[in-house]
Amino acid sequence: MTSLRIALAQFDFPVGAVAQNTDNIIAMIAEARDEHGADLVVFPELAISGYPPEDLLLRPGFLQDCAQALQRIAAATTGIAAVVGWPQATGSVVYNAASVLRDGKIEHTYRKRELPNYAVFDERRYFDVDPDGGSCVFELKGVPVGVLVCEDLWFAEPLADTVRQGAQLVVVPNASPYERGKHAQRDALLAERTAESGAAIAYLNVVGGQDALVFDGASVVADGDGTVHPAAAAFTDQWLVVDYDAPTRRFLPREWIDDGDESMDALAWRAVTRGIQDYCRKNGFKKVWLGLSGGIDSALVLALAVDALGADNVTAVRLPSRYTADMSNDLAAEQCRALGVKLEAVSIEPVFEGLMSALGPMFEGQAADVTEENLQSRSRGVILMALSNKFGGLLLTTGNKSEYAVGYATIYGDMCGGYAPLKDLYKTEVFGLSKWRNTVGGAPVIPPAVISRPPSAELRDNQTDQDSLPAYDVLDGILYRFVDQEQSREEIVAAGYAAEVVDRVLRLVRTSEWKRHQAAPGPKVSRRAFGRERRYPISNGYKG
Amino acid sequence: MTSLRIALAQFDFPVGAVAQNTDNIIAMIAEARDEHGADLVVFPELAISGYPPEDLLLRPGFLQDCAQALQRIAAATTGIAAVVGWPQATGSVVYNAASVLRDGKIEHTYRKRELPNYAVFDERRYFDVDPDGGSCVFELKGVPVGVLVCEDLWFAEPLADTVRQGAQLVVVPNASPYERGKHAQRDALLAERTAESGAAIAYLNVVGGQDALVFDGASVVADGDGTVHPAAAAFTDQWLVVDYDAPTRRFLPREWIDDGDESMDALAWRAVTRGIQDYCRKNGFKKVWLGLSGGIDSALVLALAVDALGADNVTAVRLPSRYTADMSNDLAAEQCRALGVKLEAVSIEPVFEGLMSALGPMFEGQAADVTEENLQSRSRGVILMALSNKFGGLLLTTGNKSEYAVGYATIYGDMCGGYAPLKDLYKTEVFGLSKWRNTVGGAPVIPPAVISRPPSAELRDNQTDQDSLPAYDVLDGILYRFVDQEQSREEIVAAGYAAEVVDRVLRLVRTSEWKRHQAAPGPKVSRRAFGRERRYPISNGYKG
Repeated sequence: MTSLRIALAQFDFPVGAVAQNTDNIIAMIAEARDEHGADLVVFPELAISGYPPEDLLLRPGFLQDCAQALQRIAAATTGIAAVVGWPQATGSVVYNAASVLRDGKIEHTYRKRELPNYAVFDERRYFDVDPDGGSCVFELKGVPVGVLVCEDLWFAEPLADTVRQGAQLVVVPNASPYERGKHAQRDALLAERTAESGAAIAYLNVVGGQDALVFDGASVVADGDGTVHPAAAAFTDQWLVVDYDAPTRRFLPREWIDDGDESMDALAWRAVTRGIQDYCRKNGFKKVWLGLSGGIDSALVLALAVDALGADNVTAVRLPSRYTADMSNDLAAEQCRALGVKLEAVSIEPVFEGLMSALGPMFEGQAADVTEENLQSRSRGVILMALSNKFGGLLLTTGNKSEYAVGYATIYGDMCGGYAPLKDLYKTEVFGLSKWRNTVGGAPVIPPAVISRPPSAELRDNQTDQDSLPAYDVLDGILYRFVDQEQSREEIVAAGYAAEVVDRVLRLVRTSEWKRHQAAPGPKVSRRAFGRERRYPISNGYKG
Repeated sequence: MTSLRIALAQFDFPVGAVAQNTDNIIAMIAEARDEHGADLVVFPELAISGYPPEDLLLRPGFLQDCAQALQRIAAATTGIAAVVGWPQATGSVVYNAASVLRDGKIEHTYRKRELPNYAVFDERRYFDVDPDGGSCVFELKGVPVGVLVCEDLWFAEPLADTVRQGAQLVVVPNASPYERGKHAQRDALLAERTAESGAAIAYLNVVGGQDALVFDGASVVADGDGTVHPAAAAFTDQWLVVDYDAPTRRFLPREWIDDGDESMDALAWRAVTRGIQDYCRKNGFKKVWLGLSGGIDSALVLALAVDALGADNVTAVRLPSRYTADMSNDLAAEQCRALGVKLEAVSIEPVFEGLMSALGPMFEGQAADVTEENLQSRSRGVILMALSNKFGGLLLTTGNKSEYAVGYATIYGDMCGGYAPLKDLYKTEVFGLSKWRNTVGGAPVIPPAVISRPPSAELRDNQTDQDSLPAYDVLDGILYRFVDQEQSREEIVAAGYAAEVVDRVLRLVRTSEWKRHQAAPGPKVSRRAFGRERRYPISNGYKG
């Protein structure tokens, strides 16, 4: 019995980038061996393909490329063992696999037993469970090491079986997306599993944004007695190198990474900024645009974008109309000055007038209504898209979860854009996160007046959001129960919300489903994000 | 042994409309008994909830409502037996169930064994397989009748087990969406299953459009010797009442429904018109709008909309610019006259000028590019949405599968709209379907010149689609191989397409994924429709 040095490769392996991921894995194997002196290097779940590859897994050519990549990687394992995740196709069956590579060979291939098919996961669409799969245990310097993959750990049996096969240390590659409160849940699980099995666990999670998901890394190791050590940094590309002492089944003391502020707000902030960074990088954008109204949503998106990409890569655009308050223009300018962001201005009046002129003959005798409000919002959307088209750069859209929920957003208007940073944050959370951000890092990045003024779409005179919506604490209370907790109308009313308000909100949620189907992706933060995590019919006769 | 009269309820049971579906089922049970003299009435898969209910199945209140609905329905079964599909929740587990109801009681509940989780199906997200489920056989006038649900029939074992339990007739409620060529495939399956098992089969399929799916009905019965009888009409709400002769295991001769033209084009036409009808009805629209350019896509959508909803419920809008050919305006007018459709005209020039004026300071010194083309398309989108907002009615969007594939469509421009009738038809299929429609039902509904002129977006002088895209037969050939057949770049090149053209098309498909994520739903016609059937990452590094 001896001590093992294990290098956990907490890095980003972009979806589909098989060649690039393979090159990186090979370079990291050398780095783990030569610079970190590791006996074993572990890569995340499906590191070769990236996670989740979605329907790329239905392409035979893609699966062949992944298999060839594994051969290339295996050839690079001299003087070190590696555990590498990949999609393994055999005939018409595909497994979510993790192979043990050593001395140029594929020694073992473990096939994931528990395939998540809920929430954001669709693994049953792609993968099978191998009925003869069983456990995977290999010897490393005399230490029996087991392999499990992600969801396997959330069930007791796979670990118990692996320990029964002799494993005293189990490495677990993961691709587990961030959501609020998950770290505590996961640490409790690790404490329970290690304590009940007596095996130590090295838990590696991938890091990086992938469309609507942000993987948070925060890899962690736990001793065989249930002690969970502080995690690697969240949302950060880094090695977590640990020494495992086989006789005691403990990880040796090291300088554990100080991850700084781990409050909910701090983690949400990092999730969203990482989401912005990686969406831009993976889709070829260096710069972003956003419409800056003087309201809190766009102010928060601006602050997030600056933290994510740097002030030089962000351009804000004021899009005033006759209804825009001077205060809105002033606050937009104030924030851009404070952040060092370039602020452009394009009046929407000529566009709105052109639209009203074109539509004049058909609109004659019709009263003004929401149509004219939408025309203003769509004028802004068209202008912002034109700037993105002409000068390049991604348009960020600034809607929040409350707006997406009740459709208080104009489709093809303020919903224009490729990425929606606030998509999974309710309006009350937008306020909270803005206040939190102003408490860290020097001068406020969001002008306090933006936070304190009453929200308004400024699409007609003296308009405020509360003219047509309940107060945001009421609205978000109803929405949280309905959307995140799946409560029924009756349950929400029983909790003390007025029946007529509940009915109105639920009707708005139902009738705006078609807008959400055409919405840009944004980073999942909650446990029930719109989009791939909440899949509702548009045509829907259910009113409960 | 005796003869059984079976009434198959080939009707539409809208998703989520539990109360309405329950009322209808109860009324249909009485009708089957009193007007058709049926011994047994069969309803489709998940008739109470509609199919697919998607994440409504995660709402405890929804599942409770479905369970109570079944009790109400059971109470209505006096003097007749009924098989009714519903989602059965027990604790935290949900089954895709079909219950046998008789004399006011729930006699048996069968739980679906094979849960499809591929293509458009996500049943593993919602349902479990009951390990102790087994078969369901009940006696009706001395005849042992079995029950299976949909996918069960595509595997040999469930039927074999049911026959082993004594069934000589098996009823199979289905929710099987239309796709080209499925009828022949299904009839061959029924012939095989009945011949190998000796059991007769009554196969009932639901009918109706549900977002991107159109269920085609076309229910069918097959004798115990492998004879498949002509189907009920496709895409039509109707009873299929059949008499089963137990001694011979045959269905008695009856006046089988003549379903008219069953060519691929005819069925595709009916799929799309039914899709339009049901999307409108289920989402509260009586009328539709569309932009009519004088090109083939919008001309075909107009003809489809008129067939679906009647000329009075369709308004076409010409949206001319300086680049619009006189011929385009003339052809739009000619088609509307022929079809009796109201044609409006709104010039986009004032809008475009307003946009160029607003953007002038920022665009100074910049050369004209695709930005100005997009501005024209977006001007049209904003105008059409304004008409829909002001006067009510759904905006139909007119893009085809080739355009969606390569992103040859302006997001927030011509992609504006709630429903996309041509979404799953390649441009070459658009031509084919237009020509076919002109051969049936009297005078041409699409002016022949619209079909014969070269396609153009008319966003600059003398533009044609083939300036920037390969010829459509080449483009569609590449797309069909890449999208529908999952061929790799190398396979497509090996099939004889020029490598540089293939690379350009594949790049366009990859880089337009973000637009497809924000696209309106349209009816699935092919075996690989964009949207819920082809789920691709936006951030995607794979170039094969």
